[in-house]
Amino acid sequence: MLVMMRRTHSPEELQALLDTIEKLGYTAHVLPGEHSLAVGITGNHSSEDREKLNQMPGVREVIPVSSPYKLAGRSFHPEDTIFQVGDATFGGNHFVVMGGPCAVETEEQTVRLAHAVKAGGAQILRGGAYKPRTSPYAFQGLGIDGLKILATARAETGLPVITEALDLPSLDAVYEYADIIQIGTRNMQNFALLKAASQLDKPVLLKRGLSATIDEWLMAAEYLLAGGNERVILCERGLRHYDPHTRNLLDLGAVLAVRKLSHLPIVIDPSHSLGHKSMVVPASRAAVAIGAHGLLVDVHDRPQEALCDGPQAISPEMFSAMVQTLRRIEAALLS
Amino acid sequence: MLVMMRRTHSPEELQALLDTIEKLGYTAHVLPGEHSLAVGITGNHSSEDREKLNQMPGVREVIPVSSPYKLAGRSFHPEDTIFQVGDATFGGNHFVVMGGPCAVETEEQTVRLAHAVKAGGAQILRGGAYKPRTSPYAFQGLGIDGLKILATARAETGLPVITEALDLPSLDAVYEYADIIQIGTRNMQNFALLKAASQLDKPVLLKRGLSATIDEWLMAAEYLLAGGNERVILCERGLRHYDPHTRNLLDLGAVLAVRKLSHLPIVIDPSHSLGHKSMVVPASRAAVAIGAHGLLVDVHDRPQEALCDGPQAISPEMFSAMVQTLRRIEAALLS
Amino acid sequence: MLVMMRRTHSPEELQALLDTIEKLGYTAHVLPGEHSLAVGITGNHSSEDREKLNQMPGVREVIPVSSPYKLAGRSFHPEDTIFQVGDATFGGNHFVVMGGPCAVETEEQTVRLAHAVKAGGAQILRGGAYKPRTSPYAFQGLGIDGLKILATARAETGLPVITEALDLPSLDAVYEYADIIQIGTRNMQNFALLKAASQLDKPVLLKRGLSATIDEWLMAAEYLLAGGNERVILCERGLRHYDPHTRNLLDLGAVLAVRKLSHLPIVIDPSHSLGHKSMVVPASRAAVAIGAHGLLVDVHDRPQEALCDGPQAISPEMFSAMVQTLRRIEAALLS
Amino acid sequence: MLVMMRRTHSPEELQALLDTIEKLGYTAHVLPGEHSLAVGITGNHSSEDREKLNQMPGVREVIPVSSPYKLAGRSFHPEDTIFQVGDATFGGNHFVVMGGPCAVETEEQTVRLAHAVKAGGAQILRGGAYKPRTSPYAFQGLGIDGLKILATARAETGLPVITEALDLPSLDAVYEYADIIQIGTRNMQNFALLKAASQLDKPVLLKRGLSATIDEWLMAAEYLLAGGNERVILCERGLRHYDPHTRNLLDLGAVLAVRKLSHLPIVIDPSHSLGHKSMVVPASRAAVAIGAHGLLVDVHDRPQEALCDGPQAISPEMFSAMVQTLRRIEAALLS
Repeated sequence: MLVMMRRTHSPEELQALLDTIEKLGYTAHVLPGEHSLAVGITGNHSSEDREKLNQMPGVREVIPVSSPYKLAGRSFHPEDTIFQVGDATFGGNHFVVMGGPCAVETEEQTVRLAHAVKAGGAQILRGGAYKPRTSPYAFQGLGIDGLKILATARAETGLPVITEALDLPSLDAVYEYADIIQIGTRNMQNFALLKAASQLDKPVLLKRGLSATIDEWLMAAEYLLAGGNERVILCERGLRHYDPHTRNLLDLGAVLAVRKLSHLPIVIDPSHSLGHKSMVVPASRAAVAIGAHGLLVDVHDRPQEALCDGPQAISPEMFSAMVQTLRRIEAALLS
Repeated sequence: MLVMMRRTHSPEELQALLDTIEKLGYTAHVLPGEHSLAVGITGNHSSEDREKLNQMPGVREVIPVSSPYKLAGRSFHPEDTIFQVGDATFGGNHFVVMGGPCAVETEEQTVRLAHAVKAGGAQILRGGAYKPRTSPYAFQGLGIDGLKILATARAETGLPVITEALDLPSLDAVYEYADIIQIGTRNMQNFALLKAASQLDKPVLLKRGLSATIDEWLMAAEYLLAGGNERVILCERGLRHYDPHTRNLLDLGAVLAVRKLSHLPIVIDPSHSLGHKSMVVPASRAAVAIGAHGLLVDVHDRPQEALCDGPQAISPEMFSAMVQTLRRIEAALLS
Repeated sequence: MLVMMRRTHSPEELQALLDTIEKLGYTAHVLPGEHSLAVGITGNHSSEDREKLNQMPGVREVIPVSSPYKLAGRSFHPEDTIFQVGDATFGGNHFVVMGGPCAVETEEQTVRLAHAVKAGGAQILRGGAYKPRTSPYAFQGLGIDGLKILATARAETGLPVITEALDLPSLDAVYEYADIIQIGTRNMQNFALLKAASQLDKPVLLKRGLSATIDEWLMAAEYLLAGGNERVILCERGLRHYDPHTRNLLDLGAVLAVRKLSHLPIVIDPSHSLGHKSMVVPASRAAVAIGAHGLLVDVHDRPQEALCDGPQAISPEMFSAMVQTLRRIEAALLS
Repeated sequence: MLVMMRRTHSPEELQALLDTIEKLGYTAHVLPGEHSLAVGITGNHSSEDREKLNQMPGVREVIPVSSPYKLAGRSFHPEDTIFQVGDATFGGNHFVVMGGPCAVETEEQTVRLAHAVKAGGAQILRGGAYKPRTSPYAFQGLGIDGLKILATARAETGLPVITEALDLPSLDAVYEYADIIQIGTRNMQNFALLKAASQLDKPVLLKRGLSATIDEWLMAAEYLLAGGNERVILCERGLRHYDPHTRNLLDLGAVLAVRKLSHLPIVIDPSHSLGHKSMVVPASRAAVAIGAHGLLVDVHDRPQEALCDGPQAISPEMFSAMVQTLRRIEAALLS
């Protein structure tokens, strides 16, 4: 449920409320708004308890919330979540471009590409050190060495780094080196990983499962928020599809549904969703036009040598031209 | 197979080739290009026949084509199909806006909305006289009276009209009154209807089946082209989906796949695909940004009174503002 | 709505009710049950009219029915629909085996296979004379000549014949020659075809669309029933699927949902759904075990020569052995 | 690749081969067959190395294997994997029935149900101590206390226990208490969990992901096999579906595809796939008929009180009657 405080409530009244909530065995989430303050309460609760809170001084109203994602939904939190990572602003009307190689291969390659994407307009550097692979025999990433290379690339370019954590040990390592922790499609409902990431003070990008409903996805985000991590970025990366002409089915309509239901920023991965270099640029244009908050895009200058997903990477030149067009579309939307 | 003529071929050489193709029992499709002329040949053919044609004067090369959609694919026809309907140009870099009520209800309503969408920037008036309905008990459209109302609206506004034909009798009627014949999702593989429409000299808009592959869709277009109707517009209108937050799953990636495989124009129906008024405008922005050739959009000024699909219709005011933004995005893509 | 008559009602009271329903502008469907008689009413109706009927003599109760498929659903018709075609009984606890070639090729082939499937336990002969083909260039069936061959095979074996109608002209021809009219997947929502078939006095087998919901399918059956054709057989034939190891996704759970919702018999097509000869026999065993009312199975003795779908046809020997096992499973379910 | 040994090879020749494989940096898997011995080799390998092994004494032939699941596929291992757990035999022509409550609630409930399912013919007791829940606020299981209750139920009935591990800590606990470790749908591609389970000497039941392809599923099994755990049971539990009349789409055709591609046993979960009590019995009959190796079924005597998935649990009476019918169908298949 959601407790709406009076505008005139005192700090003591708030504290008394929080104490009572705790005594009743619930968890309180203080939700400051522009004009008023609300307290979200999670845990099962009786109507008796609800009435008790309703009688407390400073309380304007107690609202039962039936949404299964109380913290990720807009009921508790009508305004967009907006936060900074380096120069990038996630949420609201901002559009963040994250680019880089699918997999970190060598320091030389990563630093070279980091400079290239920065010059092309990227605000965040992406690159995988731990790669989830369908086959146990495929290249699984450089691991900790890859993270160190990403740190070097950040030092050289100033770009914050996003990279994927696969499990609890790699989460610890990624937390140490990265600026944004990526949780991949296959781990969307890895609840142990979500709970661990919910305790960290770095933003988490949560990819949608291959055939997850939007409710399931927001519920997975709820695990992060319920644990205390409020800086969650959602990432649509394509659904399981029967048609061979695209790798997955990019669900841009999900951006609209998520923006209606949730206050969290949502970005698009045009590379993994469609799987073809030639589709990345127009899909990215559609992403900004439909109102996504950003892009996560594979960039490689020697795709034929890439250790992972070469055919879907665009060149730094394509990337740079693309970002310019994206910024023009952004302007066209506002004017 | 595809016969590429020499640039220097004479009309007599071409005629002799066509005669030979006919004698061999095949069908020839003359395909004039900007710089050269090709002749596409449909029907099963032997390698012997292929060699025979290869030896004829004026022939540069005979190319076997394995694509299952010889006429709809780019092999025979690398350049975009471009054609006019009234002031609208389908294909190439043009973006056509078609708008109007889902169903024709009364003359007053239709003429009123026709004026409104014209003022808002529509180039074609849409409106259903024959409605395919899942339930036998639902409103099935005004039929011939609806077509007459559409003709009146055209006379009053000058807008060409697109409306759906459901079966052979309604195809005859629609052919008489409309400027573009629409074939709906459920009829994508109604081969009798496709064959009949292939004989007509009016353009056909062919919607994608609810879970059709892109190959199946282009093959359905092939039925139209093989019968002689070359003015085919494809329309993506959303796929069957498991998520309740959108009515169907808008497959914008299909625009990219179709543009790569086929020379035919492809438009988007943001109204039937997503099913919510609030999603129509951003989805339309994404359609132009990703490179679709146009839009087919439901517009209604009294959606609560609409006899069909009211919740997905946008108002004339939203329509008008939307078209202005779409034109700005178009400009942003070109600059 | 549904009018339940008193057990003691007189024929005059019934007639008066029917007259009143007609005067109110509705359509009445008399539904005799084992112990009582009901009258189903289709058309939109006011609560005022409902009250009027409720007051009539002989009427026990008027029940509003919200199901979108009033005639196909169990509300109006709680008991299974059961009917005979030749020696075969559709519905109830009966299991009908229909077998034969996917396409009629020659008289010799068809008669030979008809004898073979009869000897193997088939009760109905299947064979396609009109073939719906994704490509305009594929073999489209022998048409009327194929129907005549099927009639010959029936004369020689005594087996009733099921074959597909594609459109209105072929429906007329199929009606003349066949015992059961098949309407295929692509035509499940070809409403003109459904309406025409609803007027005929031969049973119709209605295949499920490639991604149709069960409600849409029952609504398509409703078109047949609402037009007066009560002998409808549903046929599950596999859904669109992303996995390449089966051609389509056989939805055996649909048998359970349909049996719960509807009184109509439902059969399985294991050949087109799975697409591999080796899968047909075990899938047919599952069909009888889960409670389907029958099978429609491709049988061919020279699959490598078949003009259509050879790889999915089982041999007459496999068919014969299969039917014996199916009958043993049937017995195992009953004992 | 796969090294086929001569029948006449000596133990020393085999040892020399294994040493060479190790020196080359690969992993060897000795695969004893009925009539011959093969050695599977995983790791990337050059054609040079392949030739080197081909020349070794005792080697008959070296076969390159392109299947992405070398150990799970039939190429290396043509014969069915068969193993015992208590009185149950998994694989081959055996059909194992596993039943019990979805969630362990109390000792009294679990022991009572364990006795009931044993009396009804269950060979393994199922029950969840750790529950993966879409919502962070839902009942998450009793954890270690639940495992202890399961151990008590095993002691009282003699039934081996299967229960789910969610993550590394619960895997340790489950390993200690259970006889079969279950890995759930959401964890099918939790590679850290798969790798850890691959090191354990207890069988693992691996559920299919909600929209996993069969290749992805077998590749996930490959993680278990490649780590050394050869006792893997696959479990089909329904795919993401758009139709509301069943909870998920039970893909019984997957049993056929898996049996063709892999030697591993495959069982069905009719409870979670269809989600309705009334569908469990007929779906289980279909499972045995189509050739599945067993069932995992929810049984509860007070479903309205169940803490988890009550509506899909069948009663002990239904369970008992069902098992009798399943055994009759088994007999019908063999006779």
